[in-house]
Amino acid sequence: MKSAPTSAKPVLGEFELIRHYFAAASCAQAGEGVALGIGDDCALLGLPADEQLAISTDTLVAGVHFPDFPDPFLLGQRAVGVSVSDLAAMGATPIGFTLALTLPGVDASWLQAFTRGLDQMAQRCAIRLIGGDTTRGPLSLTLTVFGRVPKGQALTRAGAQVGDLLCVGGELGDAAGALPLVLKQQHTKQAVADALLARYWSPMPQLELGLALRGKASAALDISDGLLADCGHIAAASGVALVIEQAHVPMSAALLAFAGESTARQCALSGGDDYRLAFTLPAQYLPDLQQAGLPVYVIGRVEAGRGVTLLDSHGQSVQLPHSGYQHFGSASD
Amino acid sequence: MKSAPTSAKPVLGEFELIRHYFAAASCAQAGEGVALGIGDDCALLGLPADEQLAISTDTLVAGVHFPDFPDPFLLGQRAVGVSVSDLAAMGATPIGFTLALTLPGVDASWLQAFTRGLDQMAQRCAIRLIGGDTTRGPLSLTLTVFGRVPKGQALTRAGAQVGDLLCVGGELGDAAGALPLVLKQQHTKQAVADALLARYWSPMPQLELGLALRGKASAALDISDGLLADCGHIAAASGVALVIEQAHVPMSAALLAFAGESTARQCALSGGDDYRLAFTLPAQYLPDLQQAGLPVYVIGRVEAGRGVTLLDSHGQSVQLPHSGYQHFGSASD
Repeated sequence: MKSAPTSAKPVLGEFELIRHYFAAASCAQAGEGVALGIGDDCALLGLPADEQLAISTDTLVAGVHFPDFPDPFLLGQRAVGVSVSDLAAMGATPIGFTLALTLPGVDASWLQAFTRGLDQMAQRCAIRLIGGDTTRGPLSLTLTVFGRVPKGQALTRAGAQVGDLLCVGGELGDAAGALPLVLKQQHTKQAVADALLARYWSPMPQLELGLALRGKASAALDISDGLLADCGHIAAASGVALVIEQAHVPMSAALLAFAGESTARQCALSGGDDYRLAFTLPAQYLPDLQQAGLPVYVIGRVEAGRGVTLLDSHGQSVQLPHSGYQHFGSASD
Repeated sequence: MKSAPTSAKPVLGEFELIRHYFAAASCAQAGEGVALGIGDDCALLGLPADEQLAISTDTLVAGVHFPDFPDPFLLGQRAVGVSVSDLAAMGATPIGFTLALTLPGVDASWLQAFTRGLDQMAQRCAIRLIGGDTTRGPLSLTLTVFGRVPKGQALTRAGAQVGDLLCVGGELGDAAGALPLVLKQQHTKQAVADALLARYWSPMPQLELGLALRGKASAALDISDGLLADCGHIAAASGVALVIEQAHVPMSAALLAFAGESTARQCALSGGDDYRLAFTLPAQYLPDLQQAGLPVYVIGRVEAGRGVTLLDSHGQSVQLPHSGYQHFGSASD
């Protein structure tokens, strides 16, 4: 046994302070649907009878899902963004989240910055901190997010129909392309670095797009494992084939400038950590979404069959690159 | 940076297998109120309009909340028992839970045993595994549990009234007393060891008692930090004083035999990890609960004032021992 039982009252005191600290954050104040927040054995949520509760859990581990010594403000932002993205993918409206935070020790300035980042992204997503647990151990976070969606209208991975368009909600590959910058292995012009690092550290969940896709998209998810791997998930769940036209996969100017076309494409296809939506859509709905100013990029179509096919600009099938590239040795979606 | 980005597809494959593995567990099969379980971006729960959802998150870290190399079957049992206990404390009926499991590596026999333990306790609590995340890192688990409770009937920590009885749901101190056995620092007669170790590794949430207390108990929680510390939480939340008669705090024969009276009492008062309910109760409800065969031990009363007072058998105030003794250096409730 490395750890003998110890009487750790001062530590308990410190961690109790942390709880009070989180409880004081703006995002922990009362919100719609939250009947009881932080401070009791459980939080309490209400839900209208014609709605369902969407629930997702994500763990981020230091050295696996983010660098060992992250900027705490950015880590707070990223943790909320990554987790809420699953609600966007279901077409759900955020309600609240719990935070299970494991820390090697208590550092007030670290916690202040972390809470500011958490709070900022939580407010942008209109989601409330409703409970949690703070423990001592190697740095990691588990967020469980809750959203509401009208009964039967949640966007699942099953349901893609032959003939539907395959779409994504924005440029892909930025977060994966930003890795050498995240790891401080490379540097580049400030404007390019800022753009790419923001996509890694502050992924904005596509909540508005998710809501707009309710009753329209036949299948949806958020891209975390990489476009090809995640399209594989839709294809498998829906029992169809997805065909992607490589030339139509959108990439940002910043990524192309930083990484060059070949690496940029690899990041966009297989990089992961995009937290953009990928979805299948009957073509009739495309004009409405575009006219509403929503970011919808058609990158392919649904066909009969199975698996994912990638086509070059001549319509020839391209050998699929090694898919599901996992940063930091991650093994999680 | 310790961890450079790596392409870890084989690892992803292993962890995907784990997810399929959990998805096949009995406790992951469809259940009441669970519209969509494991496998999509979110799980979906339904809830009648006259009910509220009770939510609680608990993290267990190796070397902090359990030994570094635990028996995986027992760890699975304990993780579910500890987490569901928060639902019992609110008077909630379990619905489902998510499991965020962080593992240093993949070991099939470890996972099989862990899942059996998890499944067994989940079935005893009638709770379903509805989602989760499996990641690589130092061994830890975060469970988020969901239960339902009629609107306005949840048992909170606030509400204790002057004149109420202070009660607990069973003998206290066994889990804390079992620590030298858990750590294999001491041995004792098999029957005694079995009884104490079971209380540490397989704490049965007092769900039936929690349900029976709805509409009767004025405040309730489950004892995790130790009787004195947790009574302090009720006193603070309710704005009252709690008086405990030391001689009335129930202790098991096994604990007394193993630890002797003095240590046993310290475990019962401050040991923590009991996962028995502590609650305040208007005296008129006591006969009904006792006649229903529920475990209700009156250990004191609610008075005007603040804080917790411990009385000896002569009615004299006893100096409070160092409270909130935390096993393994834990800093969590």
